[in-house]
Amino acid sequence: MKHLTSEDIAALETRFRARFINSLSGFKSANLVGTQDAKGITNLSMISSAFHIGADPALMGMIIRPDGVPRDTLDNIKQTGIYTINQVSAQIYKQAHQTSARYDVNVSEFEQVGLTAEYINDVAAPFVAQSRLKFSLQVREIIPLAINNTILVIGEISHVLFVEQALKADGYLDIESLETIAVSGLDSYHTTKRLSRLSYAKPGQDLCALSVDGD
Amino acid sequence: MKHLTSEDIAALETRFRARFINSLSGFKSANLVGTQDAKGITNLSMISSAFHIGADPALMGMIIRPDGVPRDTLDNIKQTGIYTINQVSAQIYKQAHQTSARYDVNVSEFEQVGLTAEYINDVAAPFVAQSRLKFSLQVREIIPLAINNTILVIGEISHVLFVEQALKADGYLDIESLETIAVSGLDSYHTTKRLSRLSYAKPGQDLCALSVDGD
Repeated sequence: MKHLTSEDIAALETRFRARFINSLSGFKSANLVGTQDAKGITNLSMISSAFHIGADPALMGMIIRPDGVPRDTLDNIKQTGIYTINQVSAQIYKQAHQTSARYDVNVSEFEQVGLTAEYINDVAAPFVAQSRLKFSLQVREIIPLAINNTILVIGEISHVLFVEQALKADGYLDIESLETIAVSGLDSYHTTKRLSRLSYAKPGQDLCALSVDGD
Repeated sequence: MKHLTSEDIAALETRFRARFINSLSGFKSANLVGTQDAKGITNLSMISSAFHIGADPALMGMIIRPDGVPRDTLDNIKQTGIYTINQVSAQIYKQAHQTSARYDVNVSEFEQVGLTAEYINDVAAPFVAQSRLKFSLQVREIIPLAINNTILVIGEISHVLFVEQALKADGYLDIESLETIAVSGLDSYHTTKRLSRLSYAKPGQDLCALSVDGD
């Protein structure tokens, strides 16, 4: 096994280190964050740091870099209090990646990359029409992480839209059937193949492999 | 498309809602967190919430539920200040899942599930011998999230160990070649198949599909 120490890591070339460190956490989620400003100019940005915080209330977090590409995203969330998260499927992963280009603040990434904004009810943020599982969130907390000047945004899920066939009887959503992709590093995209669902683990009891339906 | 509102979500049966909401963020990382207490009793717990925070310094976050299974994990991190994160490969996903059983605090999950603790240098936390990519972290911040009583633990990466063939010339680690798995929902495990790496996105410029080596 290769062994790198913190001194070795500190000595790495900047972009090499970014690719390396971004590979360490494992596979990441691939989502598009949809927002708009008070004037209605839409913004769409790829994010691989969305993560589950809790189910009741239904909370999700994401890390935003104030000096990074999703800067408009944070400004818009502060203005409107609402945003959407749209899972990226294999059909739109190139368009999703292209949203990470540094477009001007007055340009909508939707048009630039060829994705379609759609709206529901009173949600003042655009969904991605092509996404098969998406939801809107009301912002709940914006927590600056002083340690490296990133920002943790926590939102509560308000509306969920999804292809109904993906929902299983026990509440599990088969996101593999939606061809949702996973990300590794900064730029690698992957489809998935299920090994198994596994039964609830208890001490001294063997696990059972479950079907996708949870049986 | 099926549409659920926040009222619909609030009305879901508790375990159904947990499975449903845990499916929304997309694919999650699969890692084992290794710790030990001041007496040297080891603990190992599965975590699907590890996420990248920054590359310089190299920071990673994870969400811990104080009333959940990784409770010992948090106690140990507070005692020793150090922990390991070990990527889960297809070879050990069942053992990894089994660590989520509620074992007694004086029992080591390593022995119970059949994984091997290994140590390096002055790191007072066990690595998983079977893991092909793993790293130790010095805890930097423990941030209670008042919104739902979970805890964000931020650590700085101090040692990285990995199968050397996975490292590409540009710093990308091919975690697919290590058979690292992805998680969906609470209990579904997936191997991956790379669609492509993609070139750095710039406005008005077509993306290129890159090989795993970044060419």
